[in-house]
Amino acid sequence: MLRYSTSGESHGICLIAVLEGMVAGLKLDPAAIDHDLWRRQQGYGRGGRMLIETDRAELLTGIRQNETIGGPLAMRIENKDFKINQLPVVHRPRPGHADLVGAVKFNRRDVRDILERASARETTARVAVGAVCRQFLAQFGVRVTSHVTDIGGVKVEDPSVFTYDQVAEHAEKSQVRCVDPAVGERMMRRIDEIKAAKDTVGGVFEVRVKGLPPGLGSFTTSDARLDARLAFALMSIQAVKGVEFGLGFAVAHTPGSRAHDEIFYNEKTKKFFRKTNRAGGLEGSMTTGEELVIRAAAKPYATLMKPLASTNIQTKAAEVGTIERSDVTAVPACGVVGESMAMFELAKVFLEKFGGDSLSETRRNFDGYLKQVEEF
Amino acid sequence: MLRYSTSGESHGICLIAVLEGMVAGLKLDPAAIDHDLWRRQQGYGRGGRMLIETDRAELLTGIRQNETIGGPLAMRIENKDFKINQLPVVHRPRPGHADLVGAVKFNRRDVRDILERASARETTARVAVGAVCRQFLAQFGVRVTSHVTDIGGVKVEDPSVFTYDQVAEHAEKSQVRCVDPAVGERMMRRIDEIKAAKDTVGGVFEVRVKGLPPGLGSFTTSDARLDARLAFALMSIQAVKGVEFGLGFAVAHTPGSRAHDEIFYNEKTKKFFRKTNRAGGLEGSMTTGEELVIRAAAKPYATLMKPLASTNIQTKAAEVGTIERSDVTAVPACGVVGESMAMFELAKVFLEKFGGDSLSETRRNFDGYLKQVEEF
Amino acid sequence: MLRYSTSGESHGICLIAVLEGMVAGLKLDPAAIDHDLWRRQQGYGRGGRMLIETDRAELLTGIRQNETIGGPLAMRIENKDFKINQLPVVHRPRPGHADLVGAVKFNRRDVRDILERASARETTARVAVGAVCRQFLAQFGVRVTSHVTDIGGVKVEDPSVFTYDQVAEHAEKSQVRCVDPAVGERMMRRIDEIKAAKDTVGGVFEVRVKGLPPGLGSFTTSDARLDARLAFALMSIQAVKGVEFGLGFAVAHTPGSRAHDEIFYNEKTKKFFRKTNRAGGLEGSMTTGEELVIRAAAKPYATLMKPLASTNIQTKAAEVGTIERSDVTAVPACGVVGESMAMFELAKVFLEKFGGDSLSETRRNFDGYLKQVEEF
Amino acid sequence: MLRYSTSGESHGICLIAVLEGMVAGLKLDPAAIDHDLWRRQQGYGRGGRMLIETDRAELLTGIRQNETIGGPLAMRIENKDFKINQLPVVHRPRPGHADLVGAVKFNRRDVRDILERASARETTARVAVGAVCRQFLAQFGVRVTSHVTDIGGVKVEDPSVFTYDQVAEHAEKSQVRCVDPAVGERMMRRIDEIKAAKDTVGGVFEVRVKGLPPGLGSFTTSDARLDARLAFALMSIQAVKGVEFGLGFAVAHTPGSRAHDEIFYNEKTKKFFRKTNRAGGLEGSMTTGEELVIRAAAKPYATLMKPLASTNIQTKAAEVGTIERSDVTAVPACGVVGESMAMFELAKVFLEKFGGDSLSETRRNFDGYLKQVEEF
Repeated sequence: MLRYSTSGESHGICLIAVLEGMVAGLKLDPAAIDHDLWRRQQGYGRGGRMLIETDRAELLTGIRQNETIGGPLAMRIENKDFKINQLPVVHRPRPGHADLVGAVKFNRRDVRDILERASARETTARVAVGAVCRQFLAQFGVRVTSHVTDIGGVKVEDPSVFTYDQVAEHAEKSQVRCVDPAVGERMMRRIDEIKAAKDTVGGVFEVRVKGLPPGLGSFTTSDARLDARLAFALMSIQAVKGVEFGLGFAVAHTPGSRAHDEIFYNEKTKKFFRKTNRAGGLEGSMTTGEELVIRAAAKPYATLMKPLASTNIQTKAAEVGTIERSDVTAVPACGVVGESMAMFELAKVFLEKFGGDSLSETRRNFDGYLKQVEEF
Repeated sequence: MLRYSTSGESHGICLIAVLEGMVAGLKLDPAAIDHDLWRRQQGYGRGGRMLIETDRAELLTGIRQNETIGGPLAMRIENKDFKINQLPVVHRPRPGHADLVGAVKFNRRDVRDILERASARETTARVAVGAVCRQFLAQFGVRVTSHVTDIGGVKVEDPSVFTYDQVAEHAEKSQVRCVDPAVGERMMRRIDEIKAAKDTVGGVFEVRVKGLPPGLGSFTTSDARLDARLAFALMSIQAVKGVEFGLGFAVAHTPGSRAHDEIFYNEKTKKFFRKTNRAGGLEGSMTTGEELVIRAAAKPYATLMKPLASTNIQTKAAEVGTIERSDVTAVPACGVVGESMAMFELAKVFLEKFGGDSLSETRRNFDGYLKQVEEF
Repeated sequence: MLRYSTSGESHGICLIAVLEGMVAGLKLDPAAIDHDLWRRQQGYGRGGRMLIETDRAELLTGIRQNETIGGPLAMRIENKDFKINQLPVVHRPRPGHADLVGAVKFNRRDVRDILERASARETTARVAVGAVCRQFLAQFGVRVTSHVTDIGGVKVEDPSVFTYDQVAEHAEKSQVRCVDPAVGERMMRRIDEIKAAKDTVGGVFEVRVKGLPPGLGSFTTSDARLDARLAFALMSIQAVKGVEFGLGFAVAHTPGSRAHDEIFYNEKTKKFFRKTNRAGGLEGSMTTGEELVIRAAAKPYATLMKPLASTNIQTKAAEVGTIERSDVTAVPACGVVGESMAMFELAKVFLEKFGGDSLSETRRNFDGYLKQVEEF
Repeated sequence: MLRYSTSGESHGICLIAVLEGMVAGLKLDPAAIDHDLWRRQQGYGRGGRMLIETDRAELLTGIRQNETIGGPLAMRIENKDFKINQLPVVHRPRPGHADLVGAVKFNRRDVRDILERASARETTARVAVGAVCRQFLAQFGVRVTSHVTDIGGVKVEDPSVFTYDQVAEHAEKSQVRCVDPAVGERMMRRIDEIKAAKDTVGGVFEVRVKGLPPGLGSFTTSDARLDARLAFALMSIQAVKGVEFGLGFAVAHTPGSRAHDEIFYNEKTKKFFRKTNRAGGLEGSMTTGEELVIRAAAKPYATLMKPLASTNIQTKAAEVGTIERSDVTAVPACGVVGESMAMFELAKVFLEKFGGDSLSETRRNFDGYLKQVEEF
């Protein structure tokens, strides 16, 4: 079973990412992992720390000559900003962050003991995990990208008009990962305004996955449901407050006659197909073979330059929340983390369905299934 | 560890629900379980089957004199409409349902082998599980309800203005589980229109949980995150395509200064409190102690009286989807299922934090923690 | 993932067994399930209850026309001796049983609340699960049997001299599941003596599995280790106090030069082979392809006709343990339960390695792997 | 939930151990962790590598000022013998090791890709994990030790005559971890003989745990059974081929009247007690409160200086197994690993029963339970 763990604090020595259960025989390109770490560090509206860190993942275990051998992959990402033991005590929890509840729950008097682990710095390790999964999925023709569809109310009106390739190409060039350059420009202006107001801003990102076979996930038990698992994966990202697939919340006002994807058959390719993808690539909690479309809403940073009202946990006096860092928004980066979480979950469900201990075995099983699908 | 499973098909002999890990010493009221089953069967716009079935859960195991003794609880719900072996073969998959992908994945030539298990009839067993969890949570003052906030675009404008008690009282009296009678009336008219058009309609329901202590869930590992777990729980419901907490997707256009809940302290009660609940009761993936607010979007039924285009899986000819049943909407029922899934997940996280093998032990641990919170 | 659960008490209405994750397309023979239930009820030295019950498993869910369709299989086994609510309160715990510790842990004043679930009656449900797994494994040429190698010190001197086929044939005919008729005769005399002394007796059984491919299980993570998983499976049986593979505890006095299985290669069959099987079919926590040999020690019943000293939990007075039932030994039956647990675990690891949602898919993947092994 | 993972190869850069789910507020003594690593490296009959390595665990994450804060603990142990990329290709699998089956399973042509991860070097990381658990358990008065009861047939006749304190004191002073100095002397002579014969030798070790409360583990579901879980934990150690509790395999020839522990009550201490501990501290798969006694058999090293017959996997020619290293026995070290696995599993079941996010919370719950037990 594919599993991952992340360890580490925001200003500790390092982060450790562990990925267990990956097949043997997968050639890994370390530069591609670092490229995903770099993508996570980009984005208009990021603050100072992104200049300090240029993350690199050191592959410690599980490989020989850059090829997986079946054992767990441990990766180390150094924190250049290592100073956890020199940092001042924090007594003023920030509303919207784990600070207050975490201190109460874990019975800590220094809120720093909470915020160091709760920080989104941890997602760096998730991106390293996702980047390995990307290389695995690529072996089967599965590609994953993301783009930002809304920042502070500045929206891409209908993201579904953009193809996977358009998203992959244009989002990658945009400082806000926006597929539409004009909208991207307006998003950056919105960020400028918010920054001037010493405020923060959230948004919506969309993860797209192309090349999945039909039949990943299942309706037979609730824990096999791929939509539930992907919702878990995306909602586990620090700032995310909502997740939806395909039409998502718009299903509420779309009648059944226009909410589903009619089924057609191509006599030449001998394949079932759809002309629409309202389901976002999932029916009955399984992949349909159409593009997977997941959107998630990321809330604004809880750390404001104009801090919110709070209470000192020692004195119980009314004070303002601690100022911990200064990004205006991280929605584009959040999209990269979203890709990572989706890739991990898809690699996991992939291995569940196709089994295999070596890349060649998994591929043989995969190819056999594709033939079964074709002949259905 | 609390676990549940459901077994059974839509027209099989029965459904079996199993709940493992419940503490000993919990008095169960079987009538209260049946009441939740009844609530799931209600709702304006339901079709014929709801008249056939009046679900009853038979408690087969895990109790003596209606008190739990620590072993797994197995419950049996009879299918009065048992006819799985007499039903005709299905070759025309319904768009929007598991039919086509399921048949391909499991390599079945009769789509009935798929739709029988994929059917939302299965949620009956989940509601039985949730109803047991409700009785457990009630021991700690935790209450759970739900209401419908949108059917086909007819909306409760701002659900957050309604208190828990208002929701619990008014939704229960409404045929569409709507807290606002006037809106409820309009929802029913919308359902009538949709029915007349031989179409189906979806909507949004909101689950509310009152009385949770702060600190359930955690940010320390991704699988401990309560928002992720609840998103999984809700998204695992058959028709759900989106899940959000508190402001949800509205965080995208709400600046940070208005997206979080400022922290105050009441000198008299010696408690931290919030004046707002934009977070929906979760910060850092932990309960804050405020009301938990989860919304989910349920898509319209995939079975229309005016069926969608499909393809016969045998002949590959263009045909229309099979007509399997005739409800216009089940959003109110879906809300009851949503309550059930939330209650299971909350009971689970509750037992993880407080431990205990008997109700008295869990209560003692819980009380000790409440005191710790108070003295923080 | 293959999972099972059992629910039910010794004198409750019924037992429920649930098996989740079985592939679709497996034809099930209900008579074969009942045959395994019958085998569990046999054995020289069983008491009165075995005459009352003739267990039958009713397949409630997960099948159509006796073929699996991918959903959970729920089975119901009636307790003909249903009287849980009429049975007297128990205040005298039996040494060696869950009685005392269970009452303390779950905070129960009636020990019956403990012993009803702790009873080995529960293994009936496990045997039903195992019997389904047997039919699955049989599709891949995997066969499982067991025999008793020791009852009360009357031993089969060297079980390894008997082939799988000898064990399967002769144990099945023996009232004590002994492969050697002469030893079996002596075992029965030993049981007679023990019975005359109003005592009970334990023993050792051996599970044999033939036809496994090499490479099930793994050394890469501790939870993938098949020896650990099988040890768990066997040790989870009520009376078992020891588990060993191959030479087992004899490795302590066997030098390395005689403790391992040298590796040879057959040019004609193009297969690696061993002349010995000291490892019991497992190297590096993986199957070698040789016969799997697991032995387990089952303790004597804790319920004696001449009861042991105990303490009344209400009065704290010294009394003797409750007399609950009267079998002298159940080692032969315990072996059948051991087969069942091994079969479940092997079916699980099988599906992990080969994947698949339908029997045909799993078989295709299996065949592909066998070819890979052959060509290695 | 407490979880651990280990990553790393025998001659890779380092080993990484991760422990997730440990409570906050536990002061860790790094020297005590290193002391356990040192204990694992000792033992008469160890070879050259033990002189190269002096293992140290670097605590990378999860702590501030040596106190846990709730996040995962990652530890790094350097491999001073790091040379994985310079080592020669291996084509001759060693009988008794993972070599051949691993190469076939993972489809590797260089057996080194298998043996590097399969090596018992990995247990170093497990010992680091166990050492953290030891410090946790110590907070509740739980102590863990081990001793060697058999090496190559040289035995401590009846280990049960030695108290926990005798074991802890004398085993620690012995080069073979033998509680009886005279027997220990004979064990070393046996090792000398085996070494002279260029052979290897296995043995039996016993893990003892003192101070456990009654009621850890459960009989209610098979995965809650503590004997099964401990058997898993011990059998997951590389060389272990058998595990038993208390009387273990001797139950086969011990009548019921002498195989169980009669129950007495001490009016003064108001405690139930036993005069014997034949069950090894477990009844109904739960701790009884008596000492936990687990024995495991460790096979002789598969790498002999006088190597066994094997087959070259490339040429298929008959050759002898690769000579990889030269210890004669590692049973004493294996005992230390056994302690570690037991401590992890006990810490896990401890947290399941008592819950808690901080040491103070877990302690409060634990104390409350002890009072309940006392008042039972």
